[in-house]
Amino acid sequence: MTRAERERDLRDRLIHAGHLIPLPTRGLATFTSDVEAVVRGVDGLVRTMEPVAGVVEIGVPPFLPEVEFVRTGYLRSFPHLLGSVDVFTGSPRDHRALMADVEAGNPWTERLSPAHLDLLSAPCHSAYPLHQGQSLHTPRVYDIHSRCWRHEPSDDPMRLMSFRMREKVLIGSAEQASAHRESGLGHGPRLLSDLGLPVSRVVANDPFFGRMARLMAEGQRDDELKFEFICDVYGGDDGGVALGSANYHQDHFGGDFDITGPDGGPAHSACIGFGLERIALALFAVHGMDTGRWPTAVRDGLRLGP
Amino acid sequence: MTRAERERDLRDRLIHAGHLIPLPTRGLATFTSDVEAVVRGVDGLVRTMEPVAGVVEIGVPPFLPEVEFVRTGYLRSFPHLLGSVDVFTGSPRDHRALMADVEAGNPWTERLSPAHLDLLSAPCHSAYPLHQGQSLHTPRVYDIHSRCWRHEPSDDPMRLMSFRMREKVLIGSAEQASAHRESGLGHGPRLLSDLGLPVSRVVANDPFFGRMARLMAEGQRDDELKFEFICDVYGGDDGGVALGSANYHQDHFGGDFDITGPDGGPAHSACIGFGLERIALALFAVHGMDTGRWPTAVRDGLRLGP
Repeated sequence: MTRAERERDLRDRLIHAGHLIPLPTRGLATFTSDVEAVVRGVDGLVRTMEPVAGVVEIGVPPFLPEVEFVRTGYLRSFPHLLGSVDVFTGSPRDHRALMADVEAGNPWTERLSPAHLDLLSAPCHSAYPLHQGQSLHTPRVYDIHSRCWRHEPSDDPMRLMSFRMREKVLIGSAEQASAHRESGLGHGPRLLSDLGLPVSRVVANDPFFGRMARLMAEGQRDDELKFEFICDVYGGDDGGVALGSANYHQDHFGGDFDITGPDGGPAHSACIGFGLERIALALFAVHGMDTGRWPTAVRDGLRLGP
Repeated sequence: MTRAERERDLRDRLIHAGHLIPLPTRGLATFTSDVEAVVRGVDGLVRTMEPVAGVVEIGVPPFLPEVEFVRTGYLRSFPHLLGSVDVFTGSPRDHRALMADVEAGNPWTERLSPAHLDLLSAPCHSAYPLHQGQSLHTPRVYDIHSRCWRHEPSDDPMRLMSFRMREKVLIGSAEQASAHRESGLGHGPRLLSDLGLPVSRVVANDPFFGRMARLMAEGQRDDELKFEFICDVYGGDDGGVALGSANYHQDHFGGDFDITGPDGGPAHSACIGFGLERIALALFAVHGMDTGRWPTAVRDGLRLGP
């Protein structure tokens, strides 16, 4: 089977078991009781993963104000993944014109206005703006979670456009950020292997857009800024799927948001992030469609109950 | 104090206690550890609220495909609350033009394309399309949760544009839907009063748009289709806030999605919904900013730990 065939096979098995309900939009899916319970279990494991002491949990809305979104550089590097929100601010007369378009089957979203909000692509992007213009005397560590959006329509059940993520992000000195990333390179894969998922850690790059993409990716790999925790979900040479990653951003976000670190220089940051649906579906792929038959240690770790 | 002053006062106390971090966009907020723990506790209580037997939990993405969104009639009745998603599908050349606009401070979202996705306003709107065109021989009951969006910018911490909701929705015969709503009118307020929240149940209406708004609202109230669970969060005559609601939709959604009920007629539906942040913040308003000093029964109910 090709990789695409194996992706569709997993999707079919999830559908057949009643775990996944396909939606008409490619890359969106509804999940049922067993998957939701596993997502909750994984979420709890990431939440209680080290570091814990002094860490502030934050729940953030799945949007970034446009001005902050632009500051992160996402629009420059990943325009193909963005989602921007429009709203209706018109009068009843405008509304009648809009409904006339809808009923005639004409395009109607042009009648909307920009909300100046962009869909969040990673929870940690909401952490840096909280400290915009600040001088931090001690590092800040957040356990941050949200719904994320990346516009990459796919039939691979492991590649959703809308998914849940939880991350541990540190903002501090270069040394503190490096140490946080290093620590995550231990704790992250261990969390996954404790669930019976065979993972390996590989140097990786983000999916940059356009002419400079290859150059940007090579630079990121040369500097070993991004490591992914890869699980061999689909088998074969190209069967790996990233379930999480550990990223050292250097002073990228500290610079974007004018944050000074405890050492007086631009703040550095690092994050350890996990895709909750990806981990849940990898567990179904590896342990089978019936959670009742999963290894006891895995069920206990996820608090799936007796 | 006026209602607006009392809203700001609660917001200030939440900020001062470190529970709420204001964001630059009105109606969006970030919440920290204690609020997140309470939201999780409330979420668990709603999930395990009756009915439970035969109920399928589903987690849905915070979007509706445009074609389904239009079918629900939301665009006709509540255009002022909608959010529509645009994406970038252009070439590297288009991207350079877009970035030139961004750098010049020009509007740039006009260069995006409609994704034909709308932000979800209530989780149950994702349930009906799952049965489009079907004849149901038995009723379906879902415990459904998601992030929701309603474009109503406000400084009231209880009125967020982006929030989490969990609902119990039944799709079946008129009799089954009525019974489900009736049952929720008992279980819903009890869940809240068990948490020490003084709630009363009142006939309510949805915030319809335009010239027909008053007429639509009056019809809904006359037929007692919507009840809200109101908590006197702000005191005084106008201090109530809806923490949840129990709604009987008659055959509104069954008709929209061409679903036939077990009695052979158009399917009827009803939902019991809860706003998770609203309930959490009402608990802080009523029991105080320090969860460590909340009544033991409330802490235990929310599983806040020792």
